[in-house]
Amino acid sequence: MKYIESKKNEEIKQINKLNKTKEIKKTGTYLIEGFHLVREADENNQKILTIIVTEKNEEDQLVKKYYDNALVVSDDIAKGLSDTTTLQGIFAVIKINEPEEIPTLNGQWVILANVQDPGNVGTIVRTADAAGYDGVITSLDSADIYQPKVQRSMQGSQFHLPIYRLDLQDAISRAKDAGLTVYGSEVNDQAVPYNTLNKVDNFALIMGNEAHGLSEDALQMTDQNIYIPILGKAESLNVAVAAGVLMYGLKDF
Amino acid sequence: MKYIESKKNEEIKQINKLNKTKEIKKTGTYLIEGFHLVREADENNQKILTIIVTEKNEEDQLVKKYYDNALVVSDDIAKGLSDTTTLQGIFAVIKINEPEEIPTLNGQWVILANVQDPGNVGTIVRTADAAGYDGVITSLDSADIYQPKVQRSMQGSQFHLPIYRLDLQDAISRAKDAGLTVYGSEVNDQAVPYNTLNKVDNFALIMGNEAHGLSEDALQMTDQNIYIPILGKAESLNVAVAAGVLMYGLKDF
Repeated sequence: MKYIESKKNEEIKQINKLNKTKEIKKTGTYLIEGFHLVREADENNQKILTIIVTEKNEEDQLVKKYYDNALVVSDDIAKGLSDTTTLQGIFAVIKINEPEEIPTLNGQWVILANVQDPGNVGTIVRTADAAGYDGVITSLDSADIYQPKVQRSMQGSQFHLPIYRLDLQDAISRAKDAGLTVYGSEVNDQAVPYNTLNKVDNFALIMGNEAHGLSEDALQMTDQNIYIPILGKAESLNVAVAAGVLMYGLKDF
Repeated sequence: MKYIESKKNEEIKQINKLNKTKEIKKTGTYLIEGFHLVREADENNQKILTIIVTEKNEEDQLVKKYYDNALVVSDDIAKGLSDTTTLQGIFAVIKINEPEEIPTLNGQWVILANVQDPGNVGTIVRTADAAGYDGVITSLDSADIYQPKVQRSMQGSQFHLPIYRLDLQDAISRAKDAGLTVYGSEVNDQAVPYNTLNKVDNFALIMGNEAHGLSEDALQMTDQNIYIPILGKAESLNVAVAAGVLMYGLKDF
């Protein structure tokens, strides 16, 4: 265990950089915040490289478990690391653990195609977990899941189900090759209301960009395009809400 | 039309205060931002008191329509007023238009009980609009709908359906007196999965606080408590996603 008082400490400066995707990629590590997430990471056998706490949390069991890799920092340093307004005073640096090879897809998957908002990406992963989906694939142009804001909104679901990052066309091809029915979400002439579908057990649901929806290329690759009927005067739904309605709506439970 | 260059201009200083609930209440006015919202306000006959634009938008039709009440401001002033990162350079101050008397409730309503996050409140109103609900009631302790962040996430739905602010117990009583079936959303022994309900035409769905759910008092007043089955390992759903799943799930369409 080490005590750090200065914001200029090299280790702290390095950890602070983990709010940038570039640094996350370079180091192969990312930062999480709060008791709930750090406990989930620990319970789900993630590799915790460093645990950072304020003095009031110095006696916590987690600190004892990771004693050799614990940093006790001032409230001021903790505030600098924090992405939230209500400081819990606990953080961890985690080693990214991505599989060398992606297994054949099976069951029910969500594919995020250029979903940009970190809160949307995180919330969709959380909902996929709640709805009992088998995993999530994010396209290369979606928000990076290791960003602090995405990590926070996933609320620990990142440790419950696999999340793969793939080229969109590659992801769709893998889903089709594995025999999953691929649903695009889009309003067009060939699309049908989600609630009129015959439910299937194995499928992939693609959710598109917040402003532009799914690209024409992706829509061409789907087996069926579906939409949520707008029964009032709104132009559209928030993509995380739409994903939730569809994820539960497509399940047979 | 007036040109304003200085941030210290009294009118600008006053408009800037409209990001605070206290000032919104005191003046009975609120601020909206962006072409989509200002157009929706205009099209839906809201009382636009002032329209504020940057020089590049000086020739816009909306500015011509509200010529006598238009302020042309510097980009710098506009950035100060803005709640977003991508500045569109158009704002409007709107007069709050609340009914003196709330009509008898009818059809399908959503009641927000102590929902705190502005984004959640706004997104739920937007979803209620999309799902064809008749209106939304927010409890006195929910986020104020006239805050800029709530206004933005409603995406214009605030002009499509009535939103009333009421004491929670008063709201539930009104729903019951009007013959609506009142659903609480909560996991407890008496609650049933939402997808096993017999659908009814007239109901009110209550959504509770992000962290604490619905209070015991409120749960006692409901006709039926319902929940969304968690089929995976997540502890819970985001309240706006849960509201979306339930709003569509309870409709017969």
